[in-house]
Amino acid sequence: MILEVADIRVDPARATEFEAAIRHGAETVASRATGFRGYKVNRSVESPGRYLLMIYWDTLEDHTVGFRQGPLFGEWRAIVGPFFAAPPHVEHFELVAKSAGG
Amino acid sequence: MILEVADIRVDPARATEFEAAIRHGAETVASRATGFRGYKVNRSVESPGRYLLMIYWDTLEDHTVGFRQGPLFGEWRAIVGPFFAAPPHVEHFELVAKSAGG
Repeated sequence: MILEVADIRVDPARATEFEAAIRHGAETVASRATGFRGYKVNRSVESPGRYLLMIYWDTLEDHTVGFRQGPLFGEWRAIVGPFFAAPPHVEHFELVAKSAGG
Repeated sequence: MILEVADIRVDPARATEFEAAIRHGAETVASRATGFRGYKVNRSVESPGRYLLMIYWDTLEDHTVGFRQGPLFGEWRAIVGPFFAAPPHVEHFELVAKSAGG
């Protein structure tokens, strides 16, 4: 399993609208991609308009090839792209360690 | 619940040693802090030596006051601090949305 972390900046004045849009995009578009395992949207306490979108994928290629080069990506970007104040920074992560309980 | 995300950079040549150290620090020190709910350590695929440490806390103050200004913080920093190539960037996040399954 691979964790995609997208570091997103939006206009804080549109935060509520963006939160509804990204939830809609995740639930109705990204969730249909092959290898999609789940997502979280996190809002920064210290930096208004900063969000971390976390999506779990079966493999790196499920995101980088299957999703980003596939037909769903245009739908996704049409929903969330208009809110971006800058291009999101995206990296992928592998789990090294976690607490026994969670 | 609050998510702390610490963006950590270490010398990639010491990655294996750092991973053992941060797991030890999380399991034996941070986990004893009031309000600690669990942690994950994630290793970047694209940026060698970059890690995201995620710790879940009951409240923001459990981390910023209880842990960082309490007696455990010195123990924690003694274990993981020697590996830092730069001061970690730390922010806190609130969950906005997540998939039904997880």
